[in-house]
Amino acid sequence: MNVEEKLYKLTQIGIALSRERNLRVLLSKILSEARAFTNAEGGSLYIHRDGKLTFAVSQNDVLYSQQDTVRCKVFRGKTLDIGNNSIAGYSAYTGETINIADAYTIPNDAPYHIDRSFDIENQYRTKSMLVIPMGEKSDELIGVLALINALDNDGKIIPFAQEYEMLIAALASQAAVAIRNAQLNQHLQEAYLDTIMRLSRAAEFRDKETAFHLEKISTYSAILAEQLGFPQKYVDDIRYASPMHDIGKIGISDSILLKPGKLTSEEFEQMKQHTIYGADILKNAKSDVLELSLEIALTHHERYDGLGYPTGLKGKEIPWGGRIVAVADVFDALTSKRCYKDAWETDKAIEYITELAGKQFDPIVVKAFHTSLEKILDAKKTYEES
Amino acid sequence: MNVEEKLYKLTQIGIALSRERNLRVLLSKILSEARAFTNAEGGSLYIHRDGKLTFAVSQNDVLYSQQDTVRCKVFRGKTLDIGNNSIAGYSAYTGETINIADAYTIPNDAPYHIDRSFDIENQYRTKSMLVIPMGEKSDELIGVLALINALDNDGKIIPFAQEYEMLIAALASQAAVAIRNAQLNQHLQEAYLDTIMRLSRAAEFRDKETAFHLEKISTYSAILAEQLGFPQKYVDDIRYASPMHDIGKIGISDSILLKPGKLTSEEFEQMKQHTIYGADILKNAKSDVLELSLEIALTHHERYDGLGYPTGLKGKEIPWGGRIVAVADVFDALTSKRCYKDAWETDKAIEYITELAGKQFDPIVVKAFHTSLEKILDAKKTYEES
Repeated sequence: MNVEEKLYKLTQIGIALSRERNLRVLLSKILSEARAFTNAEGGSLYIHRDGKLTFAVSQNDVLYSQQDTVRCKVFRGKTLDIGNNSIAGYSAYTGETINIADAYTIPNDAPYHIDRSFDIENQYRTKSMLVIPMGEKSDELIGVLALINALDNDGKIIPFAQEYEMLIAALASQAAVAIRNAQLNQHLQEAYLDTIMRLSRAAEFRDKETAFHLEKISTYSAILAEQLGFPQKYVDDIRYASPMHDIGKIGISDSILLKPGKLTSEEFEQMKQHTIYGADILKNAKSDVLELSLEIALTHHERYDGLGYPTGLKGKEIPWGGRIVAVADVFDALTSKRCYKDAWETDKAIEYITELAGKQFDPIVVKAFHTSLEKILDAKKTYEES
Repeated sequence: MNVEEKLYKLTQIGIALSRERNLRVLLSKILSEARAFTNAEGGSLYIHRDGKLTFAVSQNDVLYSQQDTVRCKVFRGKTLDIGNNSIAGYSAYTGETINIADAYTIPNDAPYHIDRSFDIENQYRTKSMLVIPMGEKSDELIGVLALINALDNDGKIIPFAQEYEMLIAALASQAAVAIRNAQLNQHLQEAYLDTIMRLSRAAEFRDKETAFHLEKISTYSAILAEQLGFPQKYVDDIRYASPMHDIGKIGISDSILLKPGKLTSEEFEQMKQHTIYGADILKNAKSDVLELSLEIALTHHERYDGLGYPTGLKGKEIPWGGRIVAVADVFDALTSKRCYKDAWETDKAIEYITELAGKQFDPIVVKAFHTSLEKILDAKKTYEES
């Protein structure tokens, strides 16, 4: 490649990075692209967090077969100080690109040194390095990109060519913007989900549902939707929408909602209205999440055999959202302790749901429930332990 | 600039575009950058929406002094069909870049033609054009970028150099990704705000606040924060956070919340608890919006003179969020009709708030209220008319 081709390639990489909104995938992609560009055997990417550099991803063609496993095992939680000592820390501190031909011949009076313990442990030889801060001087530091062991065509370790310094610096700037965007997007998504959970929980403030009831329904529904083969977008949407399924309970008076004993048939008729109230609260929305939440609020008490409420929809007339959340909701209700009942054993609850396939529940959803049972029980356990 | 410099510049433009998350600003920036790059006198940017091309922004150094005014006046709502006839429509349909030396000499049998009515109306001469679809072939069409009248160094109209076709196509790809990201971001933000509004309104379902009460408080609070000189981030945060100020009312029993007459002092003590309940619902959140909403829920009934509740905080001890929303909330309560009272005249409400500066309200916030009164009354009118 001549310089022109390289710059054009760089533009294409920039586009590919901007396109990626999932932070974890993005970080792997940045490192892979930078390595491919310079033909580097390995590398690491650090993210700036709370004044430290946190290991985010590490790749090495010699040491690891799967790129990402490393991230979890070797480096989890490992941080570097910003400042002298480590090369990445120094680069972050000064904003300088550091190009080293051999990490083992760094003079003793240099402001940074290499920590050889990793090499010793892994019988590896870190030689040439290209370390570049991500972010612009005027801006906040986003992280550091460290490339290790440039290879020539014969696979021999050589220094990183000087022309790469500028090119990888440009790639690092693109990466910094993409990371920042993905971080902002992730924060916004987290804040959104958290807000839905809190406000929906507030709506149940009065009838004191079990802890994590909404979180569990949200996760179970997403697992079921995924198992049923829905696209990722729908899986995400139902994760956000399902916690709002009982929001209409806000419209039910204390005397009915908080009644300790059994409801009279008249009171039950009023209680059923929570589906209508919910739909009313959520109507005329413009987002997919809220449209789905309306569908769910309105139909999660419909039954497959047509004996449910409020409308008596039957089978496939009931929208998917309602059919999925019906199973998720009942499974959690059965297996959770309430003031008026103990938690059922998991097996008994599974049996109960199985028996009602084709009656209360869509058999296809019940089948997906069985197939994804392990994931559902894992999620249940995770919430119950926290 | 040689090609290398141009490509490097292109990378920098890509970074600048990815950085911009505000859709409206982004669209203007894309057009400006493309024009600067090719030395084009004018240009337009169309966005693909519901199978049509919608005019998004138009710039022309000869015709318009202010770039953006055009967008609002001349072209508002104007659309083009995707397909033959118009040049932009043809480019969108075929995915082709179209480079025309003189728009007035397009042969009659060409699949597209120029509509001269704009030139006639504005006494303008559209000559050279470079029209490029945004988006990739495999992907959805995002829009079309049309550049008009390339100028040489003497300001003479010349054709767009062929080398620009590839460069502007690369810029268009970058632009497409940036637009898509900004659109997704905007949708997510809108969905988030809409959800907050609905769920917060649900919490007030029982005491039937006036229509648009939450929307007005949200807007008033944002206007006040802006007037007080807070950064845009805080202005946005308070816009999202303020609608949740009364979420704790969910914890107040029907008998108190819905009581038609005056509350006894005991009942009022219970009613005051809604600030504590609200804080409880919103505690331990990790997002700035929810942290601010907690602060507001807890302190919007504190008074500047220390006689408020729940804590009796005084003056600057009350967080800004509480001091701002206190004014926004009371102003809207006074000027809205409730079941137990008519809406006050605006002047009377302003007078009331002015008198309570230093007593119930922070004088600085009351001052900001006066300074931004026009904006507040505009917003009020907008909501009341809708």
